[in-house]
Amino acid sequence: MTEKKLKVDGDELRGLLDGRWAHVRERAREVLQGDLYAPVHGLTVDEHRARTLSQLKALAGTEMPAYGFPESVGGKNDIGASVVAFEMLVADLSLMVKMGVQWGLFGGAITALGTDRHHREYLPDAMSVELPGCFAMTETGHGSDVQNLRTTATYDPATEEFVVHTPDEAARKDYIGNAARDGRMAVVFAQLHAGGGEHGVHAVLVPIRDADGRPMPGVRIEDCGTKAGLNGVDNGRLWFDQVRVPRGNLLNRYGDVAPDGTYSSPIESPGRRFFTMLGTLIRGRVSVAGGAGSAAKAALAIAIRYSDTRRQFTRPSEDGPAQEVRILDYLAHQRKLLPALARTYALHFAQEELVSRLHDLSRAERPDERAQRELESRVAGLKAVATWHASETIQTCREACGGAGYMAENRIPQLRADSDIFTTFEGDNTVLLQQLTKSLLTDFRDSFGDLDQRGLVRFMAGKVFETVIERTAAIPLIERLVSAAPGRDGEDALYNRGWQLELLEDREKHVVEGLAARLRRAGKDGGDAFEAFNRAQDHVLKAGRVHVDRVVLEAFVAGIDRCGDKATAKLLNRLCDLYVLSLVEEDRAWFLEHERLSTSRAKAVTRAVDDLCRGLRPYAVQLADAFGLRDEWLAAPIALGAEHVRQGDPVPGA
Amino acid sequence: MTEKKLKVDGDELRGLLDGRWAHVRERAREVLQGDLYAPVHGLTVDEHRARTLSQLKALAGTEMPAYGFPESVGGKNDIGASVVAFEMLVADLSLMVKMGVQWGLFGGAITALGTDRHHREYLPDAMSVELPGCFAMTETGHGSDVQNLRTTATYDPATEEFVVHTPDEAARKDYIGNAARDGRMAVVFAQLHAGGGEHGVHAVLVPIRDADGRPMPGVRIEDCGTKAGLNGVDNGRLWFDQVRVPRGNLLNRYGDVAPDGTYSSPIESPGRRFFTMLGTLIRGRVSVAGGAGSAAKAALAIAIRYSDTRRQFTRPSEDGPAQEVRILDYLAHQRKLLPALARTYALHFAQEELVSRLHDLSRAERPDERAQRELESRVAGLKAVATWHASETIQTCREACGGAGYMAENRIPQLRADSDIFTTFEGDNTVLLQQLTKSLLTDFRDSFGDLDQRGLVRFMAGKVFETVIERTAAIPLIERLVSAAPGRDGEDALYNRGWQLELLEDREKHVVEGLAARLRRAGKDGGDAFEAFNRAQDHVLKAGRVHVDRVVLEAFVAGIDRCGDKATAKLLNRLCDLYVLSLVEEDRAWFLEHERLSTSRAKAVTRAVDDLCRGLRPYAVQLADAFGLRDEWLAAPIALGAEHVRQGDPVPGA
Repeated sequence: MTEKKLKVDGDELRGLLDGRWAHVRERAREVLQGDLYAPVHGLTVDEHRARTLSQLKALAGTEMPAYGFPESVGGKNDIGASVVAFEMLVADLSLMVKMGVQWGLFGGAITALGTDRHHREYLPDAMSVELPGCFAMTETGHGSDVQNLRTTATYDPATEEFVVHTPDEAARKDYIGNAARDGRMAVVFAQLHAGGGEHGVHAVLVPIRDADGRPMPGVRIEDCGTKAGLNGVDNGRLWFDQVRVPRGNLLNRYGDVAPDGTYSSPIESPGRRFFTMLGTLIRGRVSVAGGAGSAAKAALAIAIRYSDTRRQFTRPSEDGPAQEVRILDYLAHQRKLLPALARTYALHFAQEELVSRLHDLSRAERPDERAQRELESRVAGLKAVATWHASETIQTCREACGGAGYMAENRIPQLRADSDIFTTFEGDNTVLLQQLTKSLLTDFRDSFGDLDQRGLVRFMAGKVFETVIERTAAIPLIERLVSAAPGRDGEDALYNRGWQLELLEDREKHVVEGLAARLRRAGKDGGDAFEAFNRAQDHVLKAGRVHVDRVVLEAFVAGIDRCGDKATAKLLNRLCDLYVLSLVEEDRAWFLEHERLSTSRAKAVTRAVDDLCRGLRPYAVQLADAFGLRDEWLAAPIALGAEHVRQGDPVPGA
Repeated sequence: MTEKKLKVDGDELRGLLDGRWAHVRERAREVLQGDLYAPVHGLTVDEHRARTLSQLKALAGTEMPAYGFPESVGGKNDIGASVVAFEMLVADLSLMVKMGVQWGLFGGAITALGTDRHHREYLPDAMSVELPGCFAMTETGHGSDVQNLRTTATYDPATEEFVVHTPDEAARKDYIGNAARDGRMAVVFAQLHAGGGEHGVHAVLVPIRDADGRPMPGVRIEDCGTKAGLNGVDNGRLWFDQVRVPRGNLLNRYGDVAPDGTYSSPIESPGRRFFTMLGTLIRGRVSVAGGAGSAAKAALAIAIRYSDTRRQFTRPSEDGPAQEVRILDYLAHQRKLLPALARTYALHFAQEELVSRLHDLSRAERPDERAQRELESRVAGLKAVATWHASETIQTCREACGGAGYMAENRIPQLRADSDIFTTFEGDNTVLLQQLTKSLLTDFRDSFGDLDQRGLVRFMAGKVFETVIERTAAIPLIERLVSAAPGRDGEDALYNRGWQLELLEDREKHVVEGLAARLRRAGKDGGDAFEAFNRAQDHVLKAGRVHVDRVVLEAFVAGIDRCGDKATAKLLNRLCDLYVLSLVEEDRAWFLEHERLSTSRAKAVTRAVDDLCRGLRPYAVQLADAFGLRDEWLAAPIALGAEHVRQGDPVPGA
């Protein structure tokens, strides 16, 4: 990459990244301006909560709430738009999450699990924030294992009411957003008892505060207090002491109770019913993946702009005065920031694919169960990978900015602290990757958790397993690239997209099939199935991860294919090379162990990553700016000219 | 490891960990009790700063300040004790750092760079905190590259004063602890001009506030404001506008100015003088490594106790009721926490060695320049590795505790946020590792920075380089182990300590020699020396890291050798196996690429790490508790019984 500098078309690049919901992004850039939405720091918890609520109420006056709600209540039923709008709220992630709680979780649960009368009665007030609400699923004793939560909703035919009750401390609702301060009503997930039977987890609407903000009789509310971040969101705990609500408060789309207590559901199996209900709620998980991406983009934009101008140590010079070196000119600094930038691009395109898929399925005429499960699996995997990536990247950016990165005014601390929880809420990443792998093993026939470890090991025991790599984006293009791939030892193979695709496909196939064989052997042994699965747990996690890596690469390739400008596409192709080769470098032990790379080829990968970093360095600022985050959302003085002025360099955007 | 449970001697283990300064640790455990020192959260910045100052003043009434000061002013001149006392202040890292600023940096600079009259005049008030002080070294434009800072101290023979001046924005002092609120005086590092010559960086005492707390004339002070953490420490910025101080305010141990402006110094070379002065200040860096270790220990103690009791998901059972599984029984959870625990032990022993070495050198009759440089290099490397380890470990603990780990009351958020800056203050880790590698390449003959990149490349060009591995602890034992090591392919080699030691020594030798050869070639080419060094930067960082890995292993081996109880030593040996093999697993790509491990051996390493995790799991709580951090320092409800009570399990320590 010694050729002259590429003339990248900024508008083309921005347009490509803005993608299918470009209009939503543009609208967010218009709306989210001024003091009301500007990042602040140093607020007390009370001040921050009050500010976040007032921001949310202001947003309620725009078209934002309409995106995600049904047309019957004045919404636009544009699920994709609602997810993209969420991810644009990067100026304060507390507002992002508060909005997600109110419209996504609370409003979303009523939309998905309720029926028309619930929609008409509650959604308008949910949209206007007249009715702030909670999504009360997680319990102290059951966070990941929601199927076994313990709150009960027992039907009393005498009064035609449900009695909602917290039987023990493990069953208190915990970490519930909107609970500590603002919430008036909660969608409470509880084990439904009716007509003498147990029907599994269902959702019931329970008023938790009266119009004056006092807890309702039988409802106890506790504040979770200060958190590592997101202190604009009022998380709390809820206990219910025999709280009675009318029969109609059951969100009854997937299960209903007649006045006499007779239970009915369109889905017979309680397990399948539960996972179908959960499946309707995956928008939250998709949104978190997108929000994590935004936080990573903001941190990268700050760190890259700063290190493009910040200088440290002198470059010795034979002639002329010694010059201080811009820190992004150091290979070690490039290696910190540029592979992270490449992966952020890759994940951006994968997120766009995922949102599109979610959106299209939400509008499908006929539900396609396999497609839904495939979507849920991909959401699980991408959420895990995207949120870990965000945590790591923001941390890297913090360190890359040194002391400046530790100052609240430079935004990175808040981005870091706020997004930290993303790796464990809306599904713990470790649990999510395992769910993905289970789906891969059962070819998406099993919904998450229908099979426990024992069931899975038994299922595997009876099967001859062969992974069929299903391509997920730009299928004909990917097929063409793979079939034209040079052999394993081809000269320039490292930079050949077909070779790269094949390498990741082959890894996935091998890891998943190896795992299947391992579980099959364990199943045949007839030993302790839990123990067998537990011993393979790292293998299980790896299978999920390598699957996601491959899917993300396909999305990146498909994204570049949509690019209309040659030079821009060329730049993106280099970035894509850096994405793949830094992945391969990271996992080259596996490729060596499985003789997919020779030792000399593995060393060549490391050299290629160095070369790509050096070659992409001149484009780093432009690539980070193309995310289109407004300067006032970044807000960090070190990214907005403070360092540039000090150094006598041009101020970005000025 | 299927044998029956080892009977570990808790007192022996605690005593071994408490080590040479056990009495200091015990005394800290006595002193640091009660409300005054208990962790708190949710304070405003102002409240936190006030509390931290009052804590520091209370500490001043104990023997704590005496440890690090000379006997001439009532101190104990026990450098080791002062470092160990610092690391015990884990209940609030703001107090730890505030104490470090006051006694370590401010008091320490006067001690090390000043002469007897400075000691008598200022140290008693520094110790009692009557005179809160700053260590004003870092400037906005020069953080890592301190040699080129720009503040000037110009001698005026007419008035026998130094004129201290901030010539431009790059030269403002930044991130200075004690500056924003409490400091009355600062040790200001500035380029000394006297008698018409420039003499390099020296330290001058400059009063910055009067007795009423108002800035002195010509001194401008700005608050750095809210930070990611450590908000009990009042960091600020300082500007000097032609501020005059008497000639006697120069800390004149390494350079003095006569009344007529004549400069004199016991060290002729300005570079050597500068690095000698810096070298006297490395105690701060050693302390930070220890403080990072404490933060990691606290987070591990919390996460391990919690996950020992916390249950999630049901273990299928053929007979009897299904049981929920303790999360530390999952391999994935063990893999998160136990290798981190093993490395924390390893680093603890390495830190103990380092503190001992620092202490002994501080008391040596005759200065040993090579030993001093070797110490400085080891400090640089260990500080980098220990602080990165702490950041990663605390983050892992946060995620391992899920939502509970995000709640301020459970302490991990504060530990994470406070210790985050440790990776970039007291020397940026990336810069420190490079300094270490330069020392390895020059066999400690070069002090940091005497050679710039060009100088180093030229130096290497003329040399035939061979690394001689210098053992750093328990030398005869290590030699015996290595000489008895089985050949590379010996059956049980993985668990053989000699084989492990040899593996890490061999890696270090190969990496350092490969780097030397690479730089030698570049030097002979006569090309751009900066570019050549820059291209090798990742190689440079790796050389530093692998050196530290080996030194840490030696310290762990030496520590176990001091253990008087057989079962305890056996347990520690397993932990040491986990330390080494998880290191090897992490870097197995390198071992494969360089044909140090066969692919089947590499896979065996992964299996061994799994086995060791499973085998150590029953001892995890005991191992974490042996660090001897008081329950009230941990303070997290999830570690102190909340979860145990809920689960009906015994409460730790009750």
